[in-house]
Amino acid sequence: MPDGRQLTFVLGGARSGKSRHAEALVAASPPPWTYIATAEAFDAEMQARIAEHRARRDERWTVLEAPLELAEVLAGTAEGEPVLVDCLTLWLTNVMLAGDDVGAKCQQLIDTLKRPRGPWVLVSNEVGLGIVPDNAMARQFRDAAGKLNQMVAAEADSVVFMVAGLPMKVK
Amino acid sequence: MPDGRQLTFVLGGARSGKSRHAEALVAASPPPWTYIATAEAFDAEMQARIAEHRARRDERWTVLEAPLELAEVLAGTAEGEPVLVDCLTLWLTNVMLAGDDVGAKCQQLIDTLKRPRGPWVLVSNEVGLGIVPDNAMARQFRDAAGKLNQMVAAEADSVVFMVAGLPMKVK
Amino acid sequence: MPDGRQLTFVLGGARSGKSRHAEALVAASPPPWTYIATAEAFDAEMQARIAEHRARRDERWTVLEAPLELAEVLAGTAEGEPVLVDCLTLWLTNVMLAGDDVGAKCQQLIDTLKRPRGPWVLVSNEVGLGIVPDNAMARQFRDAAGKLNQMVAAEADSVVFMVAGLPMKVK
Repeated sequence: MPDGRQLTFVLGGARSGKSRHAEALVAASPPPWTYIATAEAFDAEMQARIAEHRARRDERWTVLEAPLELAEVLAGTAEGEPVLVDCLTLWLTNVMLAGDDVGAKCQQLIDTLKRPRGPWVLVSNEVGLGIVPDNAMARQFRDAAGKLNQMVAAEADSVVFMVAGLPMKVK
Repeated sequence: MPDGRQLTFVLGGARSGKSRHAEALVAASPPPWTYIATAEAFDAEMQARIAEHRARRDERWTVLEAPLELAEVLAGTAEGEPVLVDCLTLWLTNVMLAGDDVGAKCQQLIDTLKRPRGPWVLVSNEVGLGIVPDNAMARQFRDAAGKLNQMVAAEADSVVFMVAGLPMKVK
Repeated sequence: MPDGRQLTFVLGGARSGKSRHAEALVAASPPPWTYIATAEAFDAEMQARIAEHRARRDERWTVLEAPLELAEVLAGTAEGEPVLVDCLTLWLTNVMLAGDDVGAKCQQLIDTLKRPRGPWVLVSNEVGLGIVPDNAMARQFRDAAGKLNQMVAAEADSVVFMVAGLPMKVK
């Protein structure tokens, strides 16, 4: 990855190797690297997943937490700093659960992505390729996630779709 | 898109930018264009979605409704007329809910697609990439949708799979 | 497909044409061919599906059943024998339902795949591209399936992702 103000978007399903691939992309730049975590460890299942991800990263990574204020945290990173955001889907979940204005928060994020300050890699889940969910909340989330993914992909210099741990180039 | 009797198939998940991409493909031919809508506005959620799609299209589009008689409506379009069908998944839902013979209706549609009368663009959802649904009706729909998508893709001159608003060429 | 010790992985959604494509890949080698079935006909729906698959195959196919002992059955096939395994997802389901050690069984399978004895084609489902399932068991299965798919894809010489009956080359 070039050191420039490049935006890469890594999209994929559950357990498709998104985080691992994104970490490798960031680690192609010289350290230190910044990891922006959007997950909140609200239950044992999530704690286990966070611990597993953390075990892969060493002291060259600085971890910032941004369950809600993702645009602000991104805007606060240093010029040229390689940054990994993992992941947009959990951030969107947090925004919806907090009752925030989803459209406004997404637009604020996109505005920030228009001016990446370093090589930034964003991870997100594709959740729209199953049967239409029974409950309205899940449908609403699926719609918002799909819209956000489209907006981010439109800004990105490079987009990959992960299949069984392997990246397919989309853009 | 060439003006000929070309068949393009646009497949993707929920909110993957299928309709927008398909509209752009049709609009590459000179207007007027025909939009064949299969959706029925049976609830507020669907009404909102139809209104959103409609807002994108201007008076150069003629709208035909075909919740069930899709093959007949397609066969009635003029020679050379650019046509967009949005979407096959809702049409299949309507056919199943109406208690029609799904196999026969799908075969009738495929027979019509073998002789496109203009540049035709068909939109459909991929719904088979999630966990096996709990209820038998959803599994039955998923199977029928997958079979129909395979049949249409086999007839199509061009097939794209939409990922976050971006087309991936499959055929 | 070359006659060598080649490993091909065919991944896709429900009704995406995985089995048909995999059968064609195996049938590119001279017969006889070995079909390793992991499905158990525990209900009418599954019996119908097995019967449909069986109707496509003739006497040049030898069928072996391996609902659980997949690694052992694979290791027992002859040198140079073209083998189709259909499919890993059902095998994993059987392993989980049997209460076996999922990690150990998957590792044993991967060890066997490191030394294919002929052209082997493995079929599996991608199940991680829908909304997060409500129930913990389904999430656990989705995670295990995603991990297994990544492990198999890493060993494979060739990986294809099926979309509406058409193969997209991933590796």
